[in-house]
Amino acid sequence: MSDILNADRRKLMQLLALGAALGGAGLPGSEALAADAPPPGAPRPKVAMLVHPRMVLLDLIGPATVLNICQCEIHYVWKEVGPIAADLMPIASTTSFVNCPKDLDVLFVPGGIMGTIACMNDPEVLNFLADRGSRAKFVTSVCTGSLVLGAAGLLRGYKATSNWTVTDILPIMGAIYTPGRVITDRNRITGAAVTAGLDFGLTLAARLRDEHTAKRVQLLIEYAPEPPFDAGTPERAGPELVREIKSGRVGMEAMAHKAAQDAALRFSKA
Amino acid sequence: MSDILNADRRKLMQLLALGAALGGAGLPGSEALAADAPPPGAPRPKVAMLVHPRMVLLDLIGPATVLNICQCEIHYVWKEVGPIAADLMPIASTTSFVNCPKDLDVLFVPGGIMGTIACMNDPEVLNFLADRGSRAKFVTSVCTGSLVLGAAGLLRGYKATSNWTVTDILPIMGAIYTPGRVITDRNRITGAAVTAGLDFGLTLAARLRDEHTAKRVQLLIEYAPEPPFDAGTPERAGPELVREIKSGRVGMEAMAHKAAQDAALRFSKA
Repeated sequence: MSDILNADRRKLMQLLALGAALGGAGLPGSEALAADAPPPGAPRPKVAMLVHPRMVLLDLIGPATVLNICQCEIHYVWKEVGPIAADLMPIASTTSFVNCPKDLDVLFVPGGIMGTIACMNDPEVLNFLADRGSRAKFVTSVCTGSLVLGAAGLLRGYKATSNWTVTDILPIMGAIYTPGRVITDRNRITGAAVTAGLDFGLTLAARLRDEHTAKRVQLLIEYAPEPPFDAGTPERAGPELVREIKSGRVGMEAMAHKAAQDAALRFSKA
Repeated sequence: MSDILNADRRKLMQLLALGAALGGAGLPGSEALAADAPPPGAPRPKVAMLVHPRMVLLDLIGPATVLNICQCEIHYVWKEVGPIAADLMPIASTTSFVNCPKDLDVLFVPGGIMGTIACMNDPEVLNFLADRGSRAKFVTSVCTGSLVLGAAGLLRGYKATSNWTVTDILPIMGAIYTPGRVITDRNRITGAAVTAGLDFGLTLAARLRDEHTAKRVQLLIEYAPEPPFDAGTPERAGPELVREIKSGRVGMEAMAHKAAQDAALRFSKA
Protein backbone atom coordinates (compact mmCIF):
# COMPACT_ATOMS: atom_id res chain seq x y z
CA MET A 1 0.00 0.00 0.00
CA SER A 2 1.46 3.36 -1.01
CA ASP A 3 2.07 6.21 1.44
CA ILE A 4 -0.51 8.22 -0.41
CA LEU A 5 -3.04 5.46 0.11
CA ASN A 6 -2.19 5.29 3.82
CA ALA A 7 -2.63 9.05 4.12
CA ASP A 8 -6.03 8.70 2.47
CA ARG A 9 -6.92 5.91 4.86
CA ARG A 10 -6.05 8.07 7.87
CA LYS A 11 -8.16 10.85 6.44
CA LEU A 12 -11.01 8.40 5.92
CA MET A 13 -10.85 7.42 9.57
CA GLN A 14 -10.96 11.08 10.60
CA LEU A 15 -13.91 11.80 8.37
CA LEU A 16 -15.80 8.78 9.59
CA ALA A 17 -15.03 9.98 13.11
CA LEU A 18 -17.05 13.06 12.29
CA GLY A 19 -19.86 10.82 11.17
CA ALA A 20 -20.31 13.17 8.24
CA ALA A 21 -23.21 12.48 5.95
CA LEU A 22 -23.35 8.79 6.75
CA GLY A 23 -26.88 7.47 7.13
CA GLY A 24 -27.81 3.93 8.08
CA ALA A 25 -29.37 2.10 5.18
CA GLY A 26 -28.99 3.49 1.68
CA LEU A 27 -31.28 5.60 -0.39
CA PRO A 28 -34.86 4.42 -0.62
CA GLY A 29 -35.63 2.65 -3.86
CA SER A 30 -37.44 5.69 -5.14
CA GLU A 31 -34.21 7.69 -5.07
CA ALA A 32 -32.21 5.21 -7.06
CA LEU A 33 -33.05 2.72 -9.76
CA ALA A 34 -36.67 2.42 -8.79
CA ALA A 35 -37.73 6.00 -9.44
CA ASP A 36 -40.30 4.55 -11.77
CA ALA A 37 -41.66 1.86 -9.45
CA PRO A 38 -45.41 2.06 -8.91
CA PRO A 39 -46.48 2.64 -5.31
CA PRO A 40 -46.72 -0.76 -3.71
CA GLY A 41 -50.20 -2.00 -2.93
CA ALA A 42 -48.95 -4.50 -0.38
CA PRO A 43 -46.91 -3.77 2.78
CA ARG A 44 -43.16 -3.66 2.17
CA PRO A 45 -41.67 -7.14 2.57
CA LYS A 46 -39.28 -7.34 5.54
CA VAL A 47 -35.89 -8.69 4.49
CA ALA A 48 -32.92 -9.48 6.74
CA MET A 49 -29.65 -9.98 4.87
CA LEU A 50 -26.74 -11.25 6.96
CA VAL A 51 -23.55 -9.25 6.52
CA HIS A 52 -20.44 -10.81 8.00
CA PRO A 53 -16.68 -10.26 8.04
CA ARG A 54 -14.92 -11.58 4.90
CA MET A 55 -18.19 -11.85 3.03
CA VAL A 56 -18.28 -11.61 -0.76
CA LEU A 57 -20.03 -8.32 -1.41
CA LEU A 58 -21.36 -9.30 -4.85
CA ASP A 59 -23.28 -12.21 -3.26
CA LEU A 60 -25.26 -9.56 -1.40
CA ILE A 61 -25.42 -6.63 -3.80
CA GLY A 62 -27.02 -8.55 -6.68
CA PRO A 63 -30.07 -9.71 -4.69
CA ALA A 64 -30.19 -6.50 -2.62
CA THR A 65 -30.43 -4.41 -5.79
CA VAL A 66 -33.40 -6.45 -6.97
CA LEU A 67 -35.14 -6.38 -3.57
CA ASN A 68 -34.51 -2.65 -3.15
CA ILE A 69 -36.21 -1.93 -6.46
CA CYS A 70 -39.07 -4.13 -5.23
CA GLN A 71 -39.49 -1.68 -2.32
CA CYS A 72 -38.48 -4.21 0.33
CA GLU A 73 -37.50 -3.03 3.81
CA ILE A 74 -33.93 -4.34 3.90
CA HIS A 75 -32.03 -4.88 7.15
CA TYR A 76 -28.31 -5.63 6.85
CA VAL A 77 -27.93 -7.66 10.02
CA TRP A 78 -24.99 -8.66 12.19
CA LYS A 79 -24.36 -9.15 15.92
CA GLU A 80 -24.01 -5.42 16.40
CA VAL A 81 -24.49 -2.39 14.21
CA GLY A 82 -21.14 -1.30 12.87
CA PRO A 83 -18.49 -1.73 10.20
CA ILE A 84 -18.02 -5.04 8.43
CA ALA A 85 -14.87 -5.85 6.45
CA ALA A 86 -16.23 -7.31 3.22
CA ASP A 87 -13.98 -8.55 0.41
CA LEU A 88 -13.90 -5.31 -1.61
CA MET A 89 -14.48 -2.60 0.97
CA PRO A 90 -15.92 -1.98 4.41
CA ILE A 91 -19.69 -1.74 4.64
CA ALA A 92 -21.94 -1.24 7.67
CA SER A 93 -24.55 -3.46 9.23
CA THR A 94 -27.72 -1.48 9.89
CA THR A 95 -29.58 -3.75 12.33
CA SER A 96 -28.35 -5.86 15.22
CA PHE A 97 -29.52 -9.44 15.74
CA VAL A 98 -31.47 -8.30 18.82
CA ASN A 99 -33.30 -5.56 16.92
CA CYS A 100 -33.94 -7.56 13.76
CA PRO A 101 -37.68 -7.99 13.10
CA LYS A 102 -38.88 -11.29 14.55
CA ASP A 103 -41.10 -12.26 11.62
CA LEU A 104 -39.39 -11.86 8.28
CA ASP A 105 -40.52 -12.28 4.73
CA VAL A 106 -36.97 -13.14 3.71
CA LEU A 107 -33.90 -14.34 5.59
CA PHE A 108 -30.81 -14.27 3.35
CA VAL A 109 -27.20 -15.39 3.84
CA PRO A 110 -24.37 -14.50 1.43
CA GLY A 111 -21.14 -16.47 1.09
CA GLY A 112 -17.49 -15.73 1.66
CA ILE A 113 -15.13 -18.66 2.19
CA MET A 114 -13.32 -17.97 5.51
CA GLY A 115 -16.18 -15.76 6.63
CA THR A 116 -18.58 -18.61 5.90
CA ILE A 117 -16.54 -21.04 7.98
CA ALA A 118 -16.42 -18.56 10.88
CA CYS A 119 -20.23 -18.27 10.75
CA MET A 120 -20.64 -22.06 10.60
CA ASN A 121 -18.74 -22.26 13.89
CA ASP A 122 -20.39 -19.31 15.64
CA PRO A 123 -23.31 -20.22 17.96
CA GLU A 124 -24.51 -16.61 18.14
CA VAL A 125 -24.89 -16.46 14.34
CA LEU A 126 -26.41 -19.93 14.09
CA ASN A 127 -28.91 -19.33 16.91
CA PHE A 128 -30.04 -16.08 15.29
CA LEU A 129 -30.50 -17.75 11.90
CA ALA A 130 -32.26 -20.79 13.38
CA ASP A 131 -34.71 -18.54 15.23
CA ARG A 132 -35.57 -16.17 12.37
CA GLY A 133 -35.43 -19.01 9.84
CA SER A 134 -38.02 -20.98 11.82
CA ARG A 135 -40.64 -18.32 11.01
CA ALA A 136 -39.37 -16.54 7.85
CA LYS A 137 -41.55 -16.80 4.77
CA PHE A 138 -38.44 -17.54 2.68
CA VAL A 139 -35.08 -18.88 3.91
CA THR A 140 -32.45 -18.14 1.28
CA SER A 141 -28.79 -17.96 0.34
CA VAL A 142 -26.29 -17.42 -2.43
CA CYS A 143 -22.93 -19.18 -2.81
CA THR A 144 -21.46 -20.69 0.39
CA GLY A 145 -24.22 -18.98 2.37
CA SER A 146 -26.10 -22.28 2.13
CA LEU A 147 -23.40 -23.92 4.25
CA VAL A 148 -24.24 -21.43 7.01
CA LEU A 149 -27.97 -22.16 6.65
CA GLY A 150 -27.02 -25.84 6.79
CA ALA A 151 -24.97 -25.43 9.96
CA ALA A 152 -27.95 -23.65 11.52
CA GLY A 153 -30.04 -26.76 10.81
CA LEU A 154 -32.22 -24.96 8.29
CA LEU A 155 -31.62 -27.24 5.29
CA ARG A 156 -32.24 -30.67 6.87
CA GLY A 157 -34.39 -32.57 4.40
CA TYR A 158 -34.38 -29.74 1.87
CA LYS A 159 -32.98 -29.71 -1.66
CA ALA A 160 -30.27 -27.05 -1.93
CA THR A 161 -27.24 -25.89 -3.89
CA SER A 162 -24.08 -23.90 -3.16
CA ASN A 163 -20.77 -22.73 -4.63
CA TRP A 164 -19.64 -25.54 -6.98
CA THR A 165 -16.48 -26.16 -4.95
CA VAL A 166 -18.34 -27.14 -1.76
CA THR A 167 -21.58 -28.81 -2.83
CA ASP A 168 -20.35 -32.13 -1.34
CA ILE A 169 -20.50 -30.52 2.11
CA LEU A 170 -24.26 -29.90 2.02
CA PRO A 171 -25.33 -33.54 2.63
CA ILE A 172 -23.16 -33.77 5.76
CA MET A 173 -25.65 -31.35 7.31
CA GLY A 174 -28.72 -33.19 6.03
CA ALA A 175 -29.39 -31.16 2.88
CA ILE A 176 -30.12 -32.85 -0.43
CA TYR A 177 -27.59 -31.39 -2.86
CA THR A 178 -29.37 -30.65 -6.12
CA PRO A 179 -27.46 -29.31 -9.13
CA GLY A 180 -28.86 -26.08 -10.53
CA ARG A 181 -28.46 -22.33 -10.72
CA VAL A 182 -31.31 -21.63 -8.27
CA ILE A 183 -32.91 -24.45 -6.27
CA THR A 184 -36.33 -23.95 -4.74
CA ASP A 185 -37.72 -26.51 -2.27
CA ARG A 186 -40.84 -25.34 -0.45
CA ASN A 187 -39.73 -22.02 1.15
CA ARG A 188 -36.00 -22.63 0.81
CA ILE A 189 -34.35 -20.92 -2.17
CA THR A 190 -30.60 -21.35 -2.59
CA GLY A 191 -28.39 -20.07 -5.38
CA ALA A 192 -25.08 -21.25 -6.82
CA ALA A 193 -21.95 -19.10 -6.51
CA VAL A 194 -21.71 -15.29 -6.49
CA THR A 195 -23.31 -14.25 -9.81
CA ALA A 196 -26.23 -16.65 -9.28
CA GLY A 197 -27.46 -13.93 -6.93
CA LEU A 198 -29.06 -12.17 -9.90
CA ASP A 199 -30.99 -15.24 -11.05
CA PHE A 200 -31.88 -15.91 -7.41
CA GLY A 201 -32.97 -12.32 -6.83
CA LEU A 202 -35.34 -12.26 -9.80
CA THR A 203 -36.74 -15.69 -8.84
CA LEU A 204 -37.43 -14.39 -5.34
CA ALA A 205 -38.90 -11.11 -6.65
CA ALA A 206 -41.50 -13.06 -8.60
CA ARG A 207 -42.45 -15.01 -5.46
CA LEU A 208 -42.55 -11.91 -3.21
CA ARG A 209 -44.35 -9.69 -5.72
CA ASP A 210 -45.31 -11.14 -9.10
CA GLU A 211 -43.78 -12.05 -12.43
CA HIS A 212 -44.58 -8.69 -14.01
CA THR A 213 -42.64 -6.87 -11.29
CA ALA A 214 -39.71 -9.26 -11.60
CA LYS A 215 -39.58 -8.64 -15.36
CA ARG A 216 -39.70 -4.89 -14.82
CA VAL A 217 -36.71 -5.19 -12.50
CA GLN A 218 -34.91 -7.35 -15.07
CA LEU A 219 -35.39 -4.65 -17.70
CA LEU A 220 -34.30 -1.89 -15.28
CA ILE A 221 -31.01 -3.68 -14.58
CA GLU A 222 -30.79 -4.75 -18.25
CA TYR A 223 -30.19 -8.36 -17.28
CA ALA A 224 -29.62 -9.92 -20.68
CA PRO A 225 -26.24 -11.47 -19.95
CA GLU A 226 -23.64 -12.11 -22.67
CA PRO A 227 -20.62 -13.67 -20.98
CA PRO A 228 -17.58 -13.08 -23.23
CA PHE A 229 -16.29 -16.58 -22.43
CA ASP A 230 -17.90 -19.94 -21.72
CA ALA A 231 -16.18 -20.96 -18.50
CA GLY A 232 -18.85 -20.38 -15.88
CA THR A 233 -19.22 -23.97 -14.65
CA PRO A 234 -16.66 -26.70 -13.92
CA GLU A 235 -17.93 -28.67 -16.91
CA ARG A 236 -17.56 -25.77 -19.33
CA ALA A 237 -14.30 -24.47 -17.89
CA GLY A 238 -12.59 -27.86 -18.09
CA PRO A 239 -10.27 -29.78 -15.78
CA GLU A 240 -7.26 -27.42 -15.89
CA LEU A 241 -9.11 -24.40 -14.50
CA VAL A 242 -10.98 -26.57 -12.00
CA ARG A 243 -7.67 -27.99 -10.76
CA GLU A 244 -6.15 -24.52 -10.44
CA ILE A 245 -9.00 -23.33 -8.28
CA LYS A 246 -9.44 -26.48 -6.22
CA SER A 247 -5.73 -26.81 -5.48
CA GLY A 248 -5.72 -23.47 -3.67
CA ARG A 249 -8.66 -24.46 -1.48
CA VAL A 250 -7.61 -27.70 0.16
CA GLY A 251 -7.18 -26.12 3.59
CA MET A 252 -10.38 -24.12 3.35
CA GLU A 253 -12.40 -27.12 2.25
CA ALA A 254 -11.04 -29.19 5.14
CA MET A 255 -12.15 -26.49 7.57
CA ALA A 256 -15.61 -26.32 5.99
CA HIS A 257 -15.93 -30.13 6.19
CA LYS A 258 -14.96 -30.05 9.86
CA ALA A 259 -17.51 -27.30 10.59
CA ALA A 260 -20.21 -29.32 8.81
CA GLN A 261 -19.35 -32.47 10.77
CA ASP A 262 -19.50 -30.49 14.01
CA ALA A 263 -22.95 -29.24 12.97
CA ALA A 264 -24.12 -32.78 12.23
CA LEU A 265 -22.90 -33.84 15.68
CA ARG A 266 -24.92 -31.04 17.26
CA PHE A 267 -28.04 -32.13 15.34
CA SER A 268 -27.61 -35.73 16.52
CA LYS A 269 -27.40 -34.61 20.15
CA ALA A 270 -30.36 -32.22 19.99
CA MET B 1 -38.51 3.75 9.05
CA SER B 2 -39.20 2.05 12.39
CA ASP B 3 -37.98 3.39 15.74
CA ILE B 4 -35.85 0.31 16.10
CA LEU B 5 -34.19 1.05 12.79
CA ASN B 6 -33.58 4.66 13.85
CA ALA B 7 -32.05 3.50 17.12
CA ASP B 8 -29.77 1.19 15.18
CA ARG B 9 -28.85 4.04 12.88
CA ARG B 10 -27.86 6.22 15.83
CA LYS B 11 -25.76 3.38 17.18
CA LEU B 12 -24.13 2.99 13.78
CA MET B 13 -23.16 6.64 13.81
CA GLN B 14 -21.66 6.25 17.29
CA LEU B 15 -19.71 3.18 16.29
CA LEU B 16 -18.41 4.82 13.15
CA ALA B 17 -17.45 7.77 15.32
CA LEU B 18 -15.10 5.41 17.13
CA GLY B 19 -13.69 4.45 13.77
CA ALA B 20 -13.66 0.90 15.04
CA ALA B 21 -12.21 -1.71 12.77
CA LEU B 22 -12.83 0.24 9.61
CA GLY B 23 -9.94 0.06 7.16
CA GLY B 24 -9.70 1.87 3.84
CA ALA B 25 -9.96 -0.53 0.94
CA GLY B 26 -11.27 -4.04 1.53
CA LEU B 27 -9.46 -7.28 1.99
CA PRO B 28 -6.74 -8.01 -0.53
CA GLY B 29 -7.81 -10.46 -3.20
CA SER B 30 -5.84 -13.20 -1.51
CA GLU B 31 -8.12 -12.98 1.54
CA ALA B 32 -11.35 -13.30 -0.38
CA LEU B 33 -12.33 -15.03 -3.58
CA ALA B 34 -8.83 -15.06 -5.02
CA ALA B 35 -7.19 -17.22 -2.39
CA ASP B 36 -6.28 -19.49 -5.26
CA ALA B 37 -4.91 -16.83 -7.60
CA PRO B 38 -1.37 -17.45 -8.75
CA PRO B 39 1.14 -14.76 -7.77
CA PRO B 40 1.01 -12.15 -10.49
CA GLY B 41 4.01 -11.98 -12.76
CA ALA B 42 3.25 -8.43 -13.87
CA PRO B 43 2.90 -5.35 -11.65
CA ARG B 44 -0.60 -4.87 -10.24
CA PRO B 45 -2.74 -2.82 -12.66
CA LYS B 46 -3.73 0.55 -11.18
CA VAL B 47 -7.48 1.04 -11.31
CA ALA B 48 -9.44 4.16 -10.32
CA MET B 49 -13.18 3.59 -9.94
CA LEU B 50 -15.28 6.70 -9.43
CA VAL B 51 -17.69 6.47 -6.51
CA HIS B 52 -20.28 9.21 -6.33
CA PRO B 53 -23.41 10.10 -4.37
CA ARG B 54 -26.53 8.28 -5.64
CA MET B 55 -24.47 5.79 -7.61
CA VAL B 56 -25.82 2.32 -8.35
CA LEU B 57 -23.61 0.05 -6.27
CA LEU B 58 -24.06 -3.00 -8.50
CA ASP B 59 -22.56 -1.05 -11.44
CA LEU B 60 -19.35 -0.92 -9.41
CA ILE B 61 -19.34 -4.17 -7.45
CA GLY B 62 -19.57 -6.47 -10.49
CA PRO B 63 -16.45 -5.12 -12.22
CA ALA B 64 -14.64 -4.49 -8.91
CA THR B 65 -15.10 -8.14 -7.91
CA VAL B 66 -13.51 -9.26 -11.18
CA LEU B 67 -10.64 -6.75 -10.96
CA ASN B 68 -9.99 -7.57 -7.29
CA ILE B 69 -9.58 -11.25 -8.11
CA CYS B 70 -7.19 -10.14 -10.89
CA GLN B 71 -5.04 -8.57 -8.16
CA CYS B 72 -5.58 -5.01 -9.36
CA GLU B 73 -4.77 -2.08 -7.08
CA ILE B 74 -8.22 -0.52 -6.83
CA HIS B 75 -8.78 3.09 -5.77
CA TYR B 76 -12.38 4.12 -5.07
CA VAL B 77 -12.04 7.79 -5.95
CA TRP B 78 -14.05 10.89 -5.18
CA LYS B 79 -13.30 14.55 -4.45
CA GLU B 80 -12.37 13.73 -0.88
CA VAL B 81 -11.96 10.54 1.09
CA GLY B 82 -15.13 9.86 3.03
CA PRO B 83 -18.59 8.37 3.04
CA ILE B 84 -20.64 8.15 -0.16
CA ALA B 85 -24.40 7.56 -0.13
CA ALA B 86 -24.86 4.84 -2.76
CA ASP B 87 -28.27 3.43 -3.68
CA LEU B 88 -28.23 0.48 -1.26
CA MET B 89 -25.96 1.62 1.56
CA PRO B 90 -23.19 4.04 2.38
CA ILE B 91 -19.72 3.11 1.19
CA ALA B 92 -16.43 4.99 1.51
CA SER B 93 -14.15 6.48 -1.10
CA THR B 94 -10.55 5.48 -0.41
CA THR B 95 -8.60 7.95 -2.54
CA SER B 96 -9.15 11.64 -3.25
CA PHE B 97 -8.91 13.07 -6.76
CA VAL B 98 -5.68 14.84 -5.75
CA ASN B 99 -4.06 11.66 -4.49
CA CYS B 100 -5.28 9.40 -7.29
CA PRO B 101 -2.37 7.94 -9.29
CA LYS B 102 -1.65 10.11 -12.33
CA ASP B 103 -1.11 7.24 -14.77
CA LEU B 104 -3.81 4.61 -14.56
CA ASP B 105 -4.33 1.29 -16.24
CA VAL B 106 -8.09 1.68 -15.87
CA LEU B 107 -10.38 4.64 -15.29
CA PHE B 108 -13.95 3.48 -14.57
CA VAL B 109 -17.23 5.33 -14.05
CA PRO B 110 -20.42 3.63 -12.74
CA GLY B 111 -23.93 4.95 -13.32
CA GLY B 112 -26.71 6.20 -11.09
CA ILE B 113 -29.37 8.41 -12.67
CA MET B 114 -29.49 11.59 -10.53
CA GLY B 115 -25.91 10.98 -9.42
CA THR B 116 -24.89 10.72 -13.05
CA ILE B 117 -26.55 14.02 -13.90
CA ALA B 118 -24.84 15.72 -10.96
CA CYS B 119 -21.46 14.44 -12.19
CA MET B 120 -22.21 15.60 -15.79
CA ASN B 121 -22.66 19.12 -14.41
CA ASP B 122 -19.70 19.14 -11.99
CA PRO B 123 -16.50 20.73 -13.37
CA GLU B 124 -14.36 19.21 -10.59
CA VAL B 125 -15.47 15.69 -11.53
CA LEU B 126 -15.19 16.32 -15.28
CA ASN B 127 -11.73 17.90 -15.01
CA PHE B 128 -10.47 14.96 -12.97
CA LEU B 129 -11.85 12.44 -15.46
CA ALA B 130 -10.56 14.37 -18.49
CA ASP B 131 -7.08 14.50 -16.98
CA ARG B 132 -6.77 10.85 -15.90
CA GLY B 133 -8.67 9.71 -18.99
CA SER B 134 -6.17 11.45 -21.28
CA ARG B 135 -3.45 9.04 -20.13
CA ALA B 136 -5.29 5.94 -18.83
CA LYS B 137 -4.66 2.69 -20.65
CA PHE B 138 -8.41 1.97 -20.60
CA VAL B 139 -11.25 4.48 -20.20
CA THR B 140 -14.37 2.60 -19.16
CA SER B 141 -17.90 2.73 -17.80
CA VAL B 142 -21.04 0.76 -17.04
CA CYS B 143 -24.62 2.01 -17.39
CA THR B 144 -25.09 5.80 -17.37
CA GLY B 145 -21.41 6.16 -16.44
CA SER B 146 -20.77 6.63 -20.16
CA LEU B 147 -22.78 9.87 -20.04
CA VAL B 148 -20.28 11.18 -17.50
CA LEU B 149 -17.35 10.09 -19.67
CA GLY B 150 -19.14 11.81 -22.55
CA ALA B 151 -19.59 15.06 -20.62
CA ALA B 152 -15.87 14.96 -19.80
CA GLY B 153 -15.18 14.89 -23.54
CA LEU B 154 -13.75 11.39 -23.42
CA LEU B 155 -16.06 9.74 -25.95
CA ARG B 156 -15.87 12.20 -28.85
CA GLY B 157 -15.45 10.11 -31.97
CA TYR B 158 -15.68 6.83 -30.07
CA LYS B 159 -18.25 4.08 -30.36
CA ALA B 160 -20.01 3.62 -27.03
CA THR B 161 -23.11 2.29 -25.28
CA SER B 162 -25.05 3.09 -22.11
CA ASN B 163 -28.21 2.28 -20.16
CA TRP B 164 -30.89 1.55 -22.79
CA THR B 165 -33.06 4.44 -21.59
CA VAL B 166 -30.45 7.11 -22.43
CA THR B 167 -28.48 5.89 -25.43
CA ASP B 168 -29.90 8.77 -27.53
CA ILE B 169 -27.98 11.19 -25.32
CA LEU B 170 -24.54 9.84 -26.24
CA PRO B 171 -24.39 11.40 -29.74
CA ILE B 172 -25.13 14.88 -28.34
CA MET B 173 -21.67 14.67 -26.78
CA GLY B 174 -19.97 13.36 -29.92
CA ALA B 175 -20.05 9.64 -29.15
CA ILE B 176 -21.17 7.13 -31.74
CA TYR B 177 -23.91 5.12 -30.06
CA THR B 178 -23.43 1.46 -30.90
CA PRO B 179 -25.90 -1.17 -29.70
CA GLY B 180 -24.33 -3.98 -27.73
CA ARG B 181 -23.71 -5.41 -24.28
CA VAL B 182 -20.06 -4.28 -24.15
CA ILE B 183 -18.67 -1.92 -26.79
CA THR B 184 -14.92 -1.68 -27.30
CA ASP B 185 -13.43 1.05 -29.53
CA ARG B 186 -9.66 1.37 -29.22
CA ASN B 187 -9.10 1.89 -25.46
CA ARG B 188 -12.67 2.84 -24.64
CA ILE B 189 -14.81 0.03 -23.20
CA THR B 190 -18.40 0.86 -22.24
CA GLY B 191 -21.07 -1.48 -20.91
CA ALA B 192 -24.87 -1.41 -21.04
CA ALA B 193 -26.91 -1.04 -17.84
CA VAL B 194 -26.05 -2.36 -14.37
CA THR B 195 -25.64 -6.12 -14.88
CA ALA B 196 -23.53 -5.59 -18.01
CA GLY B 197 -20.78 -4.84 -15.49
CA LEU B 198 -20.05 -8.57 -15.28
CA ASP B 199 -19.65 -9.00 -19.04
CA PHE B 200 -17.64 -5.77 -19.10
CA GLY B 201 -15.45 -6.87 -16.18
CA LEU B 202 -14.52 -10.18 -17.78
CA THR B 203 -13.86 -8.46 -21.13
CA LEU B 204 -11.53 -6.01 -19.40
CA ALA B 205 -9.85 -8.79 -17.37
CA ALA B 206 -8.87 -10.53 -20.59
CA ARG B 207 -7.34 -7.30 -21.93
CA LEU B 208 -5.52 -6.46 -18.66
CA ARG B 209 -4.31 -10.01 -17.99
CA ASP B 210 -5.17 -12.74 -20.48
CA GLU B 211 -8.07 -14.94 -21.51
CA HIS B 212 -7.04 -17.80 -19.22
CA THR B 213 -7.19 -15.50 -16.19
CA ALA B 214 -10.56 -14.10 -17.26
CA LYS B 215 -11.94 -17.61 -17.57
CA ARG B 216 -10.61 -18.55 -14.15
CA VAL B 217 -12.41 -15.54 -12.69
CA GLN B 218 -15.58 -16.53 -14.54
CA LEU B 219 -15.43 -19.99 -12.96
CA LEU B 220 -14.69 -18.55 -9.50
CA ILE B 221 -17.80 -16.37 -9.65
CA GLU B 222 -19.71 -19.16 -11.41
CA TYR B 223 -20.86 -16.82 -14.15
CA ALA B 224 -23.12 -19.12 -16.14
CA PRO B 225 -26.25 -16.96 -16.02
CA GLU B 226 -29.75 -18.42 -16.26
CA PRO B 227 -32.20 -15.52 -16.05
CA PRO B 228 -35.56 -16.89 -14.90
CA PHE B 229 -37.36 -14.52 -17.30
CA ASP B 230 -36.60 -13.14 -20.75
CA ALA B 231 -37.14 -9.42 -20.20
CA GLY B 232 -33.62 -8.05 -20.07
CA THR B 233 -33.81 -5.74 -23.10
CA PRO B 234 -36.54 -3.38 -24.36
CA GLU B 235 -37.12 -5.67 -27.35
CA ARG B 236 -37.59 -8.78 -25.21
CA ALA B 237 -39.54 -7.05 -22.44
CA GLY B 238 -42.06 -5.53 -24.81
CA PRO B 239 -43.73 -2.13 -25.07
CA GLU B 240 -45.77 -2.26 -21.84
CA LEU B 241 -42.76 -2.65 -19.53
CA VAL B 242 -40.75 -0.15 -21.57
CA ARG B 243 -43.56 2.40 -21.25
CA GLU B 244 -43.82 1.80 -17.49
CA ILE B 245 -40.14 2.51 -17.00
CA LYS B 246 -39.82 5.38 -19.47
CA SER B 247 -42.88 7.19 -18.13
CA GLY B 248 -41.25 7.54 -14.72
CA ARG B 249 -38.10 9.05 -16.19
CA VAL B 250 -39.28 11.98 -18.26
CA GLY B 251 -37.90 14.58 -15.86
CA MET B 252 -34.62 12.75 -15.38
CA GLU B 253 -34.10 12.31 -19.10
CA ALA B 254 -34.75 16.00 -19.71
CA MET B 255 -32.08 16.87 -17.14
CA ALA B 256 -29.60 14.45 -18.72
CA HIS B 257 -30.30 15.93 -22.18
CA LYS B 258 -29.71 19.43 -20.83
CA ALA B 259 -26.43 18.36 -19.20
CA ALA B 260 -25.29 16.78 -22.48
CA GLN B 261 -26.18 19.91 -24.47
CA ASP B 262 -24.21 22.01 -21.99
CA ALA B 263 -21.25 19.69 -22.45
CA ALA B 264 -21.49 20.01 -26.24
CA LEU B 265 -21.51 23.79 -25.87
CA ARG B 266 -18.33 23.60 -23.78
CA PHE B 267 -16.66 21.43 -26.43
CA SER B 268 -17.58 23.90 -29.18
CA LYS B 269 -16.01 26.77 -27.21
CA ALA B 270 -12.82 24.94 -26.29
